[in-house]
Amino acid sequence: MDEERPKFQGWMAVEGSRIDSLGEGNAPEEELKRAAEVMDGSGLLFMPGLVNTHGHAAMSLLRGLADDLALQDWLQNHMWPMEAKFTGDDVYWGSALAAAEMIKSGTTTFVDMYDHMHRVAEVTQSSGLRASLTRGVIGLCPEEVQKAKLADAIQFARDWHGASDGRISVMISPHAPYTCPPDFIVKFVEAAHELDLPMHTHMSETIAEVEQNVRDYGYRPVEHLDRLGMFTRPTLVAHAVHLTDEEISLLAERGVAVSHNPVSNLKLASGVARVPDLMKAGVTVSLGTDSAASNNNLDLFQEISMAALLHKGVSGDPTVIPATEALRMGTVYGARSIGLDGVTGQLKAGLKADFIALSIDKPHFAPRTDYVSHLAYAARGSDVAHVWVDGKQLLRNGKLLTLDEDKILAEAERCFERLRG
Amino acid sequence: MDEERPKFQGWMAVEGSRIDSLGEGNAPEEELKRAAEVMDGSGLLFMPGLVNTHGHAAMSLLRGLADDLALQDWLQNHMWPMEAKFTGDDVYWGSALAAAEMIKSGTTTFVDMYDHMHRVAEVTQSSGLRASLTRGVIGLCPEEVQKAKLADAIQFARDWHGASDGRISVMISPHAPYTCPPDFIVKFVEAAHELDLPMHTHMSETIAEVEQNVRDYGYRPVEHLDRLGMFTRPTLVAHAVHLTDEEISLLAERGVAVSHNPVSNLKLASGVARVPDLMKAGVTVSLGTDSAASNNNLDLFQEISMAALLHKGVSGDPTVIPATEALRMGTVYGARSIGLDGVTGQLKAGLKADFIALSIDKPHFAPRTDYVSHLAYAARGSDVAHVWVDGKQLLRNGKLLTLDEDKILAEAERCFERLRG
Repeated sequence: MDEERPKFQGWMAVEGSRIDSLGEGNAPEEELKRAAEVMDGSGLLFMPGLVNTHGHAAMSLLRGLADDLALQDWLQNHMWPMEAKFTGDDVYWGSALAAAEMIKSGTTTFVDMYDHMHRVAEVTQSSGLRASLTRGVIGLCPEEVQKAKLADAIQFARDWHGASDGRISVMISPHAPYTCPPDFIVKFVEAAHELDLPMHTHMSETIAEVEQNVRDYGYRPVEHLDRLGMFTRPTLVAHAVHLTDEEISLLAERGVAVSHNPVSNLKLASGVARVPDLMKAGVTVSLGTDSAASNNNLDLFQEISMAALLHKGVSGDPTVIPATEALRMGTVYGARSIGLDGVTGQLKAGLKADFIALSIDKPHFAPRTDYVSHLAYAARGSDVAHVWVDGKQLLRNGKLLTLDEDKILAEAERCFERLRG
Repeated sequence: MDEERPKFQGWMAVEGSRIDSLGEGNAPEEELKRAAEVMDGSGLLFMPGLVNTHGHAAMSLLRGLADDLALQDWLQNHMWPMEAKFTGDDVYWGSALAAAEMIKSGTTTFVDMYDHMHRVAEVTQSSGLRASLTRGVIGLCPEEVQKAKLADAIQFARDWHGASDGRISVMISPHAPYTCPPDFIVKFVEAAHELDLPMHTHMSETIAEVEQNVRDYGYRPVEHLDRLGMFTRPTLVAHAVHLTDEEISLLAERGVAVSHNPVSNLKLASGVARVPDLMKAGVTVSLGTDSAASNNNLDLFQEISMAALLHKGVSGDPTVIPATEALRMGTVYGARSIGLDGVTGQLKAGLKADFIALSIDKPHFAPRTDYVSHLAYAARGSDVAHVWVDGKQLLRNGKLLTLDEDKILAEAERCFERLRG
């Protein structure tokens, strides 16, 4: 994902939490001598860890609970009634379940927007993952409740931004223009300025939501949020399925990044985002799984291949989003869209040692024509054998090193049974 | 996939090549007593083996060779020049590579259309897979060559139809209306009648091909093939992306089955087939991977989830192709579309014992809400632990029992290196 050296056979040295150096060919003698530990990479392909830029980890507890339904039916009659019952304990185990799945499928950094966020932060801390966490606030409630939620979001940011040796960063999130009154959104913008943090929100996921925005506020969501000042902050918007040419230009001008969630958008029949147009306009587009309730897994390799495939078929142009670009969306563009450019998302000296190794001696990686193509089109998260974040190994030969998988599976089951009641 | 008993926790008895009986709850004492071998299915989910209804196995040698190109550039400048160099040896090892990948990802029956078909039959024989094989004839050549190719297709049918205890069946295939003159197609129809075999062809994959058909022959492909008598035989057409309402009605009326290849159609930017409309009209729609050169893997679970996702997003209706229907497309509808209804594709007493077991104690299968949903939306081919065909186990704990995977990987690499020259 480093444009100067997109792929090579070579060696890499890690010191503490960072990539110290890397190069082609065999490792130099002096590197081998000073190494405390040497790992043989034969039969393995190393790449930067994947960056999942939109999700709700705790909702993994609701995977498979309700499918094949219209969005509002799904949300109002299935998701929200269950989520209303979520305790901090549910959020903890749901997020732990997601963390286990993400590590096993090669994700090293994830964005999470939910409630009870200190429990998600605890999971991030103990799992060893890198994360950008944000308390997603729905503002359809009395002013007192709004105030308390905003205060909670601010307190979470003060408590956790920069925690775990910087592995945890925080964003500020009104949930969406359709779930937050305009004056309430303005308060989040003010808070983001005061805390000097980026913002994250859902935007233009469905046509109905865009139409409602025009009806209620006179503007489509992009102009609406722009007028409320949101784009004076570095902002990541999730979905952005329904956009006009003018909206795409404005997003590019304001430097707003987009988290593209192709699987979730298809499953909920929200539509197909105009990703080739966004990228042509210069917008940074990264990939998110959304929650396991609308996906229904957290395998970012599926989003990578889906992004590479879907837009070819829908646009009629087989050259859009080539393999390399799809992989960048899942790595370096992901890092860039959450302010971690130069921190993670590439194998490059000086960056954090967030990387994964896939075992490639398998039929679906043969023959050895082009591993960039194989990664984008043939790979699955289950090919990931090893994972490191911040220089620390989290997965070895497919086994989790920081999390107790059996306990997580049992606790997630227990939480779900209680929620189902 | 048995509508009378879509899912249950229970037991199954296999005798010889067939499913003898099955039921809910614990296995009866008398079944356990008369069993030569008892397998504990704890932590496993059993389902019928998957049926891949369109592909070109040998082209696995070209996986990742050329991507992100326009169809004609891809075909004429990359695929065809390489394929022209294919020897029987290449077809053998390319097909063996495909067989290894298919077994490991849960496919038990595959359709294959290619050249040097006796070599594909040998792979089928030794791998233990079930297959419907067909010599795909391109007729853009002198009459003498046409004659020889047709004779080859007929000879292959005579030699191999019903071979390997019936695991191998044969179809008759003019490659496509745009690669075979009308009078040549008629000869295939006659041969199919004489041999009493079904037919298989590519049809309406691209708009350009449909327009050319109208220009050259005065009809769109469905009416063209109907007038040439093809649909007087049981027929399976691959792709069928570009169809009018009238064509859909005619396919339904004639009982023509469609192999939907969503990943390949997206990757080559051919478009999105009207699958919900086809199914509403009563057409049997099954799933195919097409070759690994345009996919780029042979994981039918990806086609299942893609079919369930894609048509929701494109139609705007999240209720189309629900999870159960997507799984049926990958199993029982696949069997039906190649004349194997009542033979494979369901777990049902009397059917062939073609089944797979997925290991489900994994984060992406938790919680235990609904395994039908998990199979359609969360599963991957790599979840398959065990595979049986015709009552014989082909995969145990992810290890191939009938094929030498290391040798196949090495030979496939050797073939590719020679072809690349």
